[in-house]
Amino acid sequence: STQRTIAILPGDGIGHEIMAEAVKVLESVNARCELGLNLEHALVGGSAIDAHGTALPEATFELCARADAILLGAVGGPKWDKLPVAERPEKAGLLEIRRRLDLFGNLRPAILYPQLADASSLKPELVAGLDILIVRELTGGIYFGQPRGIRVLENGEREGYNTYVYNESQIRRIGKVAFEAAQKRGGRLCSVDKANVLEVTMLWREIMEDMAKDYPDVELSHMYVDNAAMQLIRAPKQFDVVVTGNMFGDILSDAAAMLTGSIGMLPSASLDVNGRGMYEPCHGSAPDIAGQNKANPLATILSVAMMLRYSINEPEAAQLIEDAVSKVLDQGLRTGDIFSPGSTLVNTVEMGDAVIAAL
Amino acid sequence: STQRTIAILPGDGIGHEIMAEAVKVLESVNARCELGLNLEHALVGGSAIDAHGTALPEATFELCARADAILLGAVGGPKWDKLPVAERPEKAGLLEIRRRLDLFGNLRPAILYPQLADASSLKPELVAGLDILIVRELTGGIYFGQPRGIRVLENGEREGYNTYVYNESQIRRIGKVAFEAAQKRGGRLCSVDKANVLEVTMLWREIMEDMAKDYPDVELSHMYVDNAAMQLIRAPKQFDVVVTGNMFGDILSDAAAMLTGSIGMLPSASLDVNGRGMYEPCHGSAPDIAGQNKANPLATILSVAMMLRYSINEPEAAQLIEDAVSKVLDQGLRTGDIFSPGSTLVNTVEMGDAVIAAL
Ligand SMILES: CC(C)[C@H](C(=O)O)[C@@H](O)C(=O)O
Ligand SMILES: CC(C)[C@H](C(=O)O)[C@@H](O)C(=O)O
Repeated sequence: STQRTIAILPGDGIGHEIMAEAVKVLESVNARCELGLNLEHALVGGSAIDAHGTALPEATFELCARADAILLGAVGGPKWDKLPVAERPEKAGLLEIRRRLDLFGNLRPAILYPQLADASSLKPELVAGLDILIVRELTGGIYFGQPRGIRVLENGEREGYNTYVYNESQIRRIGKVAFEAAQKRGGRLCSVDKANVLEVTMLWREIMEDMAKDYPDVELSHMYVDNAAMQLIRAPKQFDVVVTGNMFGDILSDAAAMLTGSIGMLPSASLDVNGRGMYEPCHGSAPDIAGQNKANPLATILSVAMMLRYSINEPEAAQLIEDAVSKVLDQGLRTGDIFSPGSTLVNTVEMGDAVIAAL
Repeated sequence: STQRTIAILPGDGIGHEIMAEAVKVLESVNARCELGLNLEHALVGGSAIDAHGTALPEATFELCARADAILLGAVGGPKWDKLPVAERPEKAGLLEIRRRLDLFGNLRPAILYPQLADASSLKPELVAGLDILIVRELTGGIYFGQPRGIRVLENGEREGYNTYVYNESQIRRIGKVAFEAAQKRGGRLCSVDKANVLEVTMLWREIMEDMAKDYPDVELSHMYVDNAAMQLIRAPKQFDVVVTGNMFGDILSDAAAMLTGSIGMLPSASLDVNGRGMYEPCHGSAPDIAGQNKANPLATILSVAMMLRYSINEPEAAQLIEDAVSKVLDQGLRTGDIFSPGSTLVNTVEMGDAVIAAL
């Protein structure tokens, strides 16, 4: 096959450790399946601030822009939390990549691995077999809306303000991602909004309703965001695909991931209109355990699989990795976050090695 | 004691049934404890639209404005969902009372009744003894921010927009409610924001931080809203008091309530600067079971207790009601929403009668 480039951005905190394992796995399938992938590394986030004074150096962005796919670890940490928000790893690094590459389609699966059924804080019968896909709009809404800022009022006190805004085409393009995902899955799509209060989500609801006519095989429903948060806790298996805006998606996808009790297992994809994208674990940079060889590398390893499937079009290689992960779980190997009595505690590197061995 | 007025607003759906039971209980303690409360009824929401063409008739508002406290059932239902949002029961009724009376301080306790430990979807050990108070700002933020609407862009497509805005004094006054509540409880306050992305919540965080100096006995922490949604599911007992804005509070308070598995048990208060307020159950108008004598009246009955405690200053009468509710739970009486095998299924009226008997 032709030479393709993967941008490898470890980021900060545990990002380095988990990425090292993911790269081992990627190199292994790259050789074995002759994928012809060329891995190029670059700094982003706090590590880029330390080395180059900016969270997204132009060389890093240039690599991201020409790569066939991006694999990201995680960014941020207390070391950079004193910086103005606009310069921090999250906003100047992560959100800038999303925005500049227009990675508007965020896919966040929340899957309960049968081997980890006990890890959930919910009762087993409520989550057994859980398999939800949250589709979150990622480059619009209140995250990027203008005007925004903090201004001084006439009476001398300050006021902070942000703008929650979506236009029709932004809603349609994320709707398309969600309807198509529902077609490939269980055929049910739940659009989450707050259309009883917010005008921007009234438009959202209207457009989703309009699009439903073009997808007669998808059953569309609507739910208010407060109810969605409740229903995720009460009966999460009622959902198939959920589509929502950037802010609600941030909250609901994290809640959904936590329902599985193993956020250290969950990958995510952020795609542009052509299906090019960035892949990263759902979890953060976990500064509290960084550098301790404790972190769970499986979410990043599964992000590699997701990348091979969605952006590199190598579903067999993806399946190999997913099967290997399933095998190490069957073997009872667990990092601390998913450990339960009776299983075998392993560290980050041991987990990566076990996946390689299982490949 | 002097003559005091309570506005009774049953609202829509199950509102009528649950309010009838709450009024029975209130009349009973009113007589027994000689509270001198004068109950005046009025229509709000859909029932007011049907009778008077508007969700908040002036006579209803006038009663609310002069009453010492307001007891509300619930508003809304499919019958009025075809109306323009601005005329619907929720926005033109409920949100208008909140706004016009400036009921900015919303207290939403999430308490797990020991008798109902099984009702939670979380594992018992994670929620046993759960007792969180969510303090939600209720008359500001994106719910009421201007500008808002749906406009046509130059290219002919539409764009929806809302404004998330808080000024310093709005933040300070809800902060005061929250810090004082934390002082009276476990001394811990967690302020929830999205200060890594939204400027309005950067100001929020800064003001909370500043106020903390005046409350050395309260331990203030901050959490991003996505993490808060996860932590509520992972380990809800880590929280004592949570303070947040209107939109995040809507989502998190419903999630917290659902953790208890018995949202039909939870009251709420919405207070102005003088502690005058409106009391209502956390649940909605449940059109699906309206008129069937099935709804759980205990959240409304407990709202009566909360009202007597916070706005009417009759803590003993409040305690009487709370003890009576605890007694009927001990007796194993359950409405459908909290029913579990081995307990006795009762209907709305029977539950109300049992509370009266236990008084
Ligand atoms: C780090 C933060 C800015 C980011 C977000 O809010 O989008 C993160 O929470 C996520 O969900 O990827
Ligand atoms: C009915 C709706 C407008 C309301 C809100 O969002 O505030 C409700 O969800 C609540 O929490 O009281």
